[in-house]
Amino acid sequence: LIRLAFFDPVLERIQEVEARMLRQSDNHHAELIAALRHLIGSGGKRIRVALTLLTGGMLQADPDRLVTLAAAIEMLHTATLVHDDLIDGSLMRRGRPTLNSRWSPAATVLTGDFIFARAAKLASDVESIVINQLFAETLGTIVNGEISQLFDKRVMINFAEYQKRIFAKTASLFETATKSAGLLSSLDENSIEQARQFGYGLGMAFQVVDDILDFTGDPSQVGKPVASDLRQGVITLPAIIYHQNHPEDALLPGIIIDDTGEDAILRLVDKIRNSGAIELAFEEAQKYIDLSLQALASFRDCQEKESLHDLALYILSRSK
Amino acid sequence: LIRLAFFDPVLERIQEVEARMLRQSDNHHAELIAALRHLIGSGGKRIRVALTLLTGGMLQADPDRLVTLAAAIEMLHTATLVHDDLIDGSLMRRGRPTLNSRWSPAATVLTGDFIFARAAKLASDVESIVINQLFAETLGTIVNGEISQLFDKRVMINFAEYQKRIFAKTASLFETATKSAGLLSSLDENSIEQARQFGYGLGMAFQVVDDILDFTGDPSQVGKPVASDLRQGVITLPAIIYHQNHPEDALLPGIIIDDTGEDAILRLVDKIRNSGAIELAFEEAQKYIDLSLQALASFRDCQEKESLHDLALYILSRSK
Repeated sequence: LIRLAFFDPVLERIQEVEARMLRQSDNHHAELIAALRHLIGSGGKRIRVALTLLTGGMLQADPDRLVTLAAAIEMLHTATLVHDDLIDGSLMRRGRPTLNSRWSPAATVLTGDFIFARAAKLASDVESIVINQLFAETLGTIVNGEISQLFDKRVMINFAEYQKRIFAKTASLFETATKSAGLLSSLDENSIEQARQFGYGLGMAFQVVDDILDFTGDPSQVGKPVASDLRQGVITLPAIIYHQNHPEDALLPGIIIDDTGEDAILRLVDKIRNSGAIELAFEEAQKYIDLSLQALASFRDCQEKESLHDLALYILSRSK
Repeated sequence: LIRLAFFDPVLERIQEVEARMLRQSDNHHAELIAALRHLIGSGGKRIRVALTLLTGGMLQADPDRLVTLAAAIEMLHTATLVHDDLIDGSLMRRGRPTLNSRWSPAATVLTGDFIFARAAKLASDVESIVINQLFAETLGTIVNGEISQLFDKRVMINFAEYQKRIFAKTASLFETATKSAGLLSSLDENSIEQARQFGYGLGMAFQVVDDILDFTGDPSQVGKPVASDLRQGVITLPAIIYHQNHPEDALLPGIIIDDTGEDAILRLVDKIRNSGAIELAFEEAQKYIDLSLQALASFRDCQEKESLHDLALYILSRSK
C-alpha cells in the first residue's frame, strides 16, 4: 500500500472502513468471505475512502455515519470492478489475480451481485433517504455508462461525449462521495453544491489522467499494454484531441473501425505522443482540478482541507 | 397473461406498477430501454406485485408509496432472473427468448446490474429507511442463497437445509413484500410480524409447489425437462423425502454425485412419483399455507383480504 502523507488525518478511519467492509460477509457463505477478503486485501489506494472521510471531516459530519458512507462508496466501487474484470476478461488487478481468473463466470457474477447488495445495505445504514436515492441513482449512471461503452465500441466520439462517459465511469461516484459527506453535515444548499463540484472536478481529472497514463505510462508498471483502450476500440481524450487536430490522418479511424493491428497502434501512439495531444489533455485535467480547488476554497481552513488540496495536486501529479 | 380473478381489486394498480417499471430506463441507453421492454413485456403472473398491493390495500397503506414499493420488489425479482438465466444458460423463460440467448454475457451482466440499480432507486423512493435496509438485506440473502446453491451442488441436503435454501431463493422476497407493506401502514409491531409471517408462509409454499411441479408437471407446459433440478445436481423436497424413506436406494446418491444419465433420472422420477413423496411434500406446502392463513386471519375483513385468501389457495392449487 502506497503511503500518501495527506491521508494522515484519516489513516485510522480508513482502517475502520476496511474492517467494516470485511464484516459484510459475516454469516454468509465461506466462499463469499474468502472472496471479500481477497478483494479488500488487494488494497488499492482507497482514494474514494480518503476523499469521503476528509471531506466529511472538513465539514464536521458525524464520524460514525461517515465511516458507514465511505464503506458504502468503496463497496460499490469494488462491486463494479468485479463485474468489469469479468467483462473485460482481465486476469490481474493491482498485481493480484482477479476473481474471474480463478472462478467460473457464474460465481463471479454472483459475488459482484453480493457486493452490490452489501453496498446497498451500508448505504441504507447511513440512514438518510436523500443519500440512499443519490447512491442508487449513481449506480444506475455507472452501469448505463458501461452499457454505452460496450454497445458503442469502435465508434468515434467527440469531447462532449467523452465528458459524459468519464462522468458516468468515474466522476459520478466521486461527486456522490463528496455531496453525501456534505448532506451528512447539514450544510446549506449552496455549500452542498460546492461539495458536489469539488468531487466532480476531482473525479473528471482523475479519469483524464488515467486516460493519459494509458498512452504515456510504463506498461510494466501500469500492468497493461500501452493504449489498452484503443486496442479495445475505445477512444479517450488524447486520441480525440489528436483526431481534432489531424482530421486528415486515417490511422486512427482505421484502428477504431477495423483493429488494423499492433504495428498501426504503435505508430499511432507515437504520433499522439509527439503531437502535443498529451499536453492538451493534461490542460483539461488541470481545468477540472482548478474547478475543484475553487469549490474547496469556499470551506473553512483546517487540516482536512489541506489534505484535500494535496489530494487534488496528487491526482494531477500521477500524469508526469 | 393469465387472468386471475383475485387480482381484480388491484388490476389497475398492477398496470401502474408495470408502467413505473418501464419508465426506469428513461434517459438511458437505447439497448437498456429495449431490454426492459422485452423483460417486462414477457409478463409473468406478477404474483409479488399483487401480493404487495393487496396486502398494502388491506392494511390501508398510502397507495402511491405502495405502487413504488411493488415496482421495487418486482424489479429486484426481474434483475435476479436476468442473472439466473445467464448462469444457468437458460434460453427461454415464459415462452420468450432470454436476454442471454441473444446478447453477450457482458451485456447481460450489465443489464442485470442496471435493473438492480433501478430496483434500489425505486426502493429508496419509498422514502422509508427501514424498508431500504430490509430491501438491501433481502438482496444479500437471495444472492448468498444462489452462491450456496452454486458451490454446494451435487451434495445431499436435509429438510432444514432445504428450508434455508428456499427461504433465500423465494420466501425472503415474499416476506419483504408483505412486511414492507405493513411498515408503510404504521402498524404496531405485532401486526407487522403477522404481515411478515403471512408473506413468509406464502413464499415457502410457493417454492415447495414449484419443486413438486418439477417432478409432476408436463414438461411441454413447464418449458423444462422433468426433474430439471436433479439434472443439475440440486436436491429438492420430493427427493429429500424419498431419500429419507428409502435410505437403502443408491439411485439418488448416484445421480447427485455422478450424474449417472438420463435413464437413471427417469427411473428415479418414476420411483419418487410412486413413493408417496409428492403427497408428503404437498403436505409441507399445505402447512406453510396454514401458517400464512393464520397470520392473515388477524387482519380486518375486506375485499383485499378475500383476494389474499384466494391467492394462498391458488398457490396450492398449482400443484394439482
